[in-house]
Amino acid sequence: MADKKKRRRTDSDSDSQPFKHLLKSDEQILQMLKSFSSSFASSSTSKPLTLADLSLASTCREVSDLPLSSVQSNIESLVLQLAHQILSGQGFSFTVPSRASTNQLYVPELDRIVLKDKSTIRPFSHISSVRKTTITTKILSLIHQLSLKNIHVTKRDLFYTDVKLFQDQMQSDAVLDDVSCMLGCTRSSLNVIAAEKGVVVGRLIFSDNGDMIDCTKMGMGGKAIPPNIDRVGDMQSDALFILLVEKDAAYIRLAEDRFYNRFPCIIVTAKGQPDVATRLFLKKMKIELKLPVLALVDSDPYGLKILSVYGCGSKNMSYDSANLTTPDIKWLGIRPSDLDKYKIPEQCRLPMTEQDIKTGKDLLEEDFVKKNPAWVEELNLMVKTKQKAEIQALSSFGFQYLSEVYLPLKLQQQDWI
Amino acid sequence: MADKKKRRRTDSDSDSQPFKHLLKSDEQILQMLKSFSSSFASSSTSKPLTLADLSLASTCREVSDLPLSSVQSNIESLVLQLAHQILSGQGFSFTVPSRASTNQLYVPELDRIVLKDKSTIRPFSHISSVRKTTITTKILSLIHQLSLKNIHVTKRDLFYTDVKLFQDQMQSDAVLDDVSCMLGCTRSSLNVIAAEKGVVVGRLIFSDNGDMIDCTKMGMGGKAIPPNIDRVGDMQSDALFILLVEKDAAYIRLAEDRFYNRFPCIIVTAKGQPDVATRLFLKKMKIELKLPVLALVDSDPYGLKILSVYGCGSKNMSYDSANLTTPDIKWLGIRPSDLDKYKIPEQCRLPMTEQDIKTGKDLLEEDFVKKNPAWVEELNLMVKTKQKAEIQALSSFGFQYLSEVYLPLKLQQQDWI
Repeated sequence: MADKKKRRRTDSDSDSQPFKHLLKSDEQILQMLKSFSSSFASSSTSKPLTLADLSLASTCREVSDLPLSSVQSNIESLVLQLAHQILSGQGFSFTVPSRASTNQLYVPELDRIVLKDKSTIRPFSHISSVRKTTITTKILSLIHQLSLKNIHVTKRDLFYTDVKLFQDQMQSDAVLDDVSCMLGCTRSSLNVIAAEKGVVVGRLIFSDNGDMIDCTKMGMGGKAIPPNIDRVGDMQSDALFILLVEKDAAYIRLAEDRFYNRFPCIIVTAKGQPDVATRLFLKKMKIELKLPVLALVDSDPYGLKILSVYGCGSKNMSYDSANLTTPDIKWLGIRPSDLDKYKIPEQCRLPMTEQDIKTGKDLLEEDFVKKNPAWVEELNLMVKTKQKAEIQALSSFGFQYLSEVYLPLKLQQQDWI
Repeated sequence: MADKKKRRRTDSDSDSQPFKHLLKSDEQILQMLKSFSSSFASSSTSKPLTLADLSLASTCREVSDLPLSSVQSNIESLVLQLAHQILSGQGFSFTVPSRASTNQLYVPELDRIVLKDKSTIRPFSHISSVRKTTITTKILSLIHQLSLKNIHVTKRDLFYTDVKLFQDQMQSDAVLDDVSCMLGCTRSSLNVIAAEKGVVVGRLIFSDNGDMIDCTKMGMGGKAIPPNIDRVGDMQSDALFILLVEKDAAYIRLAEDRFYNRFPCIIVTAKGQPDVATRLFLKKMKIELKLPVLALVDSDPYGLKILSVYGCGSKNMSYDSANLTTPDIKWLGIRPSDLDKYKIPEQCRLPMTEQDIKTGKDLLEEDFVKKNPAWVEELNLMVKTKQKAEIQALSSFGFQYLSEVYLPLKLQQQDWI
């Protein structure tokens, strides 16, 4: 009886699931994905462009991941240098790279924002900078402590070591970024970490602080992405692509349906705005596993903005764009053109607010959008129709339409831009 | 050289770590914890009080976890009953338990809020309720579909199946709670799940959707708590207690230091406001493993409020308080009296805002606070001194003061209330 009911329900479902009849067999789709994935891997063996390749190394500056021992010795050299400076009568001052927007540059060849080479002097003897110089010294001493103990702390922990001096966390956070630039290393090299919120599930094995994690055996909840990328390693995978998902609900659907077993992939989400830990984890997966990254985001300016943070970086961390960004992410969906193409019902589309439209128009002015004509076209369509839609809008064709029809069809048609 | 430096640093650290000299050996603390844990386990074998024990079963209502097949047959019986009602000329109407605050009751013996037995009639033939009756019918039909397919969806998915009808998600969410009450089952029994945000690490093994998870081997990131408690099972543990942590930063410190290996425990956090998945997971751990729960929250009204949601439930889900609440959580710290006791420096304490003080005073009026004199005393102290402090304030004594001194000393002194 229950079986019979079930069959009836499933039949009626497929009637109401548009485009299901277009789906080829999984074997055919897999065959195509394999050739895409392997052509991607061979093309990505060429070393990524660097500032040096573009003769920008002397006019732009970048930080890199440094081992703890180098961070420690860099701090010690800096302090020695300061001592010499003071003893030779030049006084006590730091030379701090400027992180102002006037010192930022979008480099199309790299497809990310980098920092130019302007610096400012921060003298201890001047009333306007004496506090900031003191804060800088304190942060350097705290980082030196961390490097000796080899432990990780959060920005909040740093702040609380001397609330009287820092006054508010914005001040210690800002100087922490200064110190990263001064020492030429990433914030994660300083062992200062951000709270993690991302999860990963699917065809990935990796080590987290010495423990081997098999992400095909993480149930529906998945594995929490570790806050400290320097203790992540030994990545292995038989996936054909990485599926980057904007939000939790879509992630849960794909995890429960074990989508990664039908089409071998790694599914990752930061549950909204990408955090540093998830961005570093995605970057590491792409580089070590040489896998293409396909993004599933809402069809609204915010979705595209999230995609851009993964792809090109955020402005206030432009000094570290080389380490934080994952270039060449493909926009799989939901794209503005999908709304009509997949016959998303009118009532599941939402009108864009004035603010949405403004954000959309601003995005059209961004270099990283302009360089991809297909993205410009989609974004123009969004701003023109003034309609947006969430990934969940696909639920109007049944809860599993996303995993059973929409995504397989997207993959089959190689419908990414 | 590096070694020498390290030693020097560690020495100076212990000078600046107040109360470290009071710490006994780990063996002694463990011995005490073992006897506490086992006396707790033997006391908790007695079945928890129910509404029936208090002769409240006829005047209060509660939902329970039901298997999917029962949810399915309950819906079918309800629909049959409705058909009879219509055929016998009484028209089409639902009888819906009232979830209004006037229908809620705090039961001191149970230490949680329950729902009384008032119901309202929702007739289809009345202009004021025709829409809500239609929505109720639609939600019942969607839940029936879920029970046939045995898949889980989010509230957002439900909403998108018929945006025209529901208009906004508040409406489908509210009716979903009505349907839970009508069918007498928990929302998780309906296979409608909330996005998860909690993580767990430490001495726990459990199965998530068929995969066995060993939480001692989850590195620093920990295991993401699954959104669907019905696929969680086979819990095993040699822990002596569960450490419930309010925020991410403290969780990270304890996970990196593998605190659970020094004092066998399970560490869990919802990263702020507790979500349903984490509350269900905590409850299940406490019951299956018979472990005491010790809470580490900020010393502010918000921290106590979070503790109360874990312990006594939130008002708008009072119909499900039996399943969502974990009674008898001990308030370990940071308590208002700890600020002076542990000599938290003045500059690490924050002045309470007017709103904070109001929230604190409101909490003093709550039954669940009143019934615990020690809590009242602490809260009175907080409101009197008008000072609050975050867990991270302990970082002023060194980043590892929390895991190396504060918590071990708290455990040694059995300093929880």
